[in-house]
Amino acid sequence: MAVPNVVPRAVVITVGDELLLGDTVDSNAARIGKVLAGLGAPVVRKETVGDEAAAIRVAVARALDDGDLVVVTGGLGPTPDDLTREAVAELFGRPLQTDPDLVAMLSARFRTAGSGAFPELNLSQAMVPEGARVLPNARGTAPGLALEREGRWVVLLQGVPVELEGMLAGPVRDLVREIFSDRLRPPVHRFFRTTGIAESCLAERVEGLLPAERGPVQLAYLPSIRGVDLRFTVTGGVDTDEARIWLERMEGALEDLSPYRYHDEDLVAAVAVSLECAGRTLAVAESCTGGLLAKRLTDRAGASNWFYGGVVSYTDDSKVERLGVAPALLARVGAVSEEVARSMAVGVARVFRADVGVGITGIAGPSGGTSDKPVGTVWYAVTVGERTAVETEVFVGDREAVRERSTQAALHLLYRTISD
Amino acid sequence: MAVPNVVPRAVVITVGDELLLGDTVDSNAARIGKVLAGLGAPVVRKETVGDEAAAIRVAVARALDDGDLVVVTGGLGPTPDDLTREAVAELFGRPLQTDPDLVAMLSARFRTAGSGAFPELNLSQAMVPEGARVLPNARGTAPGLALEREGRWVVLLQGVPVELEGMLAGPVRDLVREIFSDRLRPPVHRFFRTTGIAESCLAERVEGLLPAERGPVQLAYLPSIRGVDLRFTVTGGVDTDEARIWLERMEGALEDLSPYRYHDEDLVAAVAVSLECAGRTLAVAESCTGGLLAKRLTDRAGASNWFYGGVVSYTDDSKVERLGVAPALLARVGAVSEEVARSMAVGVARVFRADVGVGITGIAGPSGGTSDKPVGTVWYAVTVGERTAVETEVFVGDREAVRERSTQAALHLLYRTISD
Repeated sequence: MAVPNVVPRAVVITVGDELLLGDTVDSNAARIGKVLAGLGAPVVRKETVGDEAAAIRVAVARALDDGDLVVVTGGLGPTPDDLTREAVAELFGRPLQTDPDLVAMLSARFRTAGSGAFPELNLSQAMVPEGARVLPNARGTAPGLALEREGRWVVLLQGVPVELEGMLAGPVRDLVREIFSDRLRPPVHRFFRTTGIAESCLAERVEGLLPAERGPVQLAYLPSIRGVDLRFTVTGGVDTDEARIWLERMEGALEDLSPYRYHDEDLVAAVAVSLECAGRTLAVAESCTGGLLAKRLTDRAGASNWFYGGVVSYTDDSKVERLGVAPALLARVGAVSEEVARSMAVGVARVFRADVGVGITGIAGPSGGTSDKPVGTVWYAVTVGERTAVETEVFVGDREAVRERSTQAALHLLYRTISD
Repeated sequence: MAVPNVVPRAVVITVGDELLLGDTVDSNAARIGKVLAGLGAPVVRKETVGDEAAAIRVAVARALDDGDLVVVTGGLGPTPDDLTREAVAELFGRPLQTDPDLVAMLSARFRTAGSGAFPELNLSQAMVPEGARVLPNARGTAPGLALEREGRWVVLLQGVPVELEGMLAGPVRDLVREIFSDRLRPPVHRFFRTTGIAESCLAERVEGLLPAERGPVQLAYLPSIRGVDLRFTVTGGVDTDEARIWLERMEGALEDLSPYRYHDEDLVAAVAVSLECAGRTLAVAESCTGGLLAKRLTDRAGASNWFYGGVVSYTDDSKVERLGVAPALLARVGAVSEEVARSMAVGVARVFRADVGVGITGIAGPSGGTSDKPVGTVWYAVTVGERTAVETEVFVGDREAVRERSTQAALHLLYRTISD
């Protein structure tokens, strides 16, 4: 039982034919990885095997060679292809026993859910390897199980994402803190979100702004279609106060990264906070993004406090009739133009009687491009009071990418305009 | 070199600290799994290791024990933490050599891209283990590499998803077909998509419709928030004609699964085809879904052939002014009601002069629910000519789930109404 006081190493095993066949992307492994990294027990390897008892046994045995903690997910359901419980019980030489408390709890749950009598099939979920701890699952029927041997632990968790998340945030976190206590070395992170700047340009600017001496701080660039996040990390083991000082030094150095940097978890959150603080309301007019901007704005709970609505205008007629764009203007400069983006923004603010209006018009593709206005050409405008800002860009990528990028760019212009 | 004529077994190794930390979900492993399963060389195990040469070597060596084909992805980039090429070259005892053709190709690409001279850093991408095959990468700078030893193959691929997809669809597919030829046993699939019915109810209906005798056909239920897909599979090795006959028998038995079953790859595609065939046009009015329906409709290229546009109406005023909903009606029955859904559908069709109108109004949550109209209550209506169909449901789940489910339900009602 004497274990050296070093950072615990975790190994993750996910079980399921659907993961090997590629029918399901293994998001559970990422969920577990993130939680364990945050707790200070990082994952050093992960493995996926099919629904086969021998394969599960081999994988768990091998993982116990590498890791102090082995987390296995999947194969705990009630059907015959759920083999994890049996495989691990056999590996540990711990016979499965019916847990009377679990039977009582499961029966009660089935009664409450109005599902009638406790199905025979689900009895397997009340089977527990001798000496194992039961980890309560508030979101489903299969509990988690934890087994210990010579200071190393195997934790079995269900594969349903929402149940797994509940287990990770509660019983698993508590167990890891209990069993590894002062061996854990949680890292300290600080995130900065940026948008509207390519990774290579951003890196050049960031490297220019940051001090050469960065002590224990590591920097990662995390790009996505919506922008590039910067993550500063001080790995566990460094004194917390020292870590904080170093991270604040980095933060201070990046003050000048505006207008690309924003603070909130998402650009929509930043926009929402800015509108709410100023007591302003918003309406949006979309052509090529076809509702994506309104969708993103209303993803946010409480959007009705500042969002009045929008128009998706996929025809010239509707731009004229719904948004008040002048037919002569459309005829002269075409729907994809600075003037029409501007007129859409002004028009939608007027017809919804909102303080702020956004207009987006462009060519998402794959067809509709010309040599003059290639696929990806987008104009977007933001109007507040008497002032209207407008920008254009030719976005690269397929239809989905152009739509995502234009929406993000319009949100970015909106954020800059209302934060001024 | 003599190998038994059995189905080749594949093992996938993905490399990257970000996969272990959970910063990135390992969608590449699923991509590879899907392609190899389709080719008839199924993945039997997959493993993820960090950016560490020793870990990569151990994983590849172990994979060569289990598999005829080992696909490694990640760690082929130009930076110092890209170690896959070196690790595998060392494991195979094949020194890295500069490939002059690759240097020429990479230099030309950098010149064409206007990126100036070929950066020293990228020279590592022209290094090839002695005797390895180079797999051309049309979408990026790092080529794939394939090495053979005693009839077993290791294939190294880049981790950028769009590049990986190009490699899998071209050079990797060709290589697998060449090296395993008549050992491959591609399965035959047939998909049926359903929506609007819970998995357990669907299973009951499907099992009732299907013949008891199903020969070599396996059935999988693949649930997602938009519905449940049925996948019938005849695994490789069964005579193709026989497989086809069996699959057609299953297909015939499920004719009566309407209205839940639809044929196209997506419900929006089914709606689009139906509208286009009938020469009809569409406009949509959304409250709780906030643009998600319009967004999904316009995800489809060519939507402008039949989609005129929509109104996102997040306030009572805009329902009155933009959609012509009667203020007295709103006052009497409230915005979330059968009558208002109906009025929104009729109103949006009128103001956009479209043949078909959709109206959605509901409570996406998390707040806004009452005992009378709990969170998740949604009314949705479809109007065509003189006829308006309307339905309601209390959808379960969080805000995102309610919005997704209401959009899908409205699309389903739309599909049924216009297909009548």
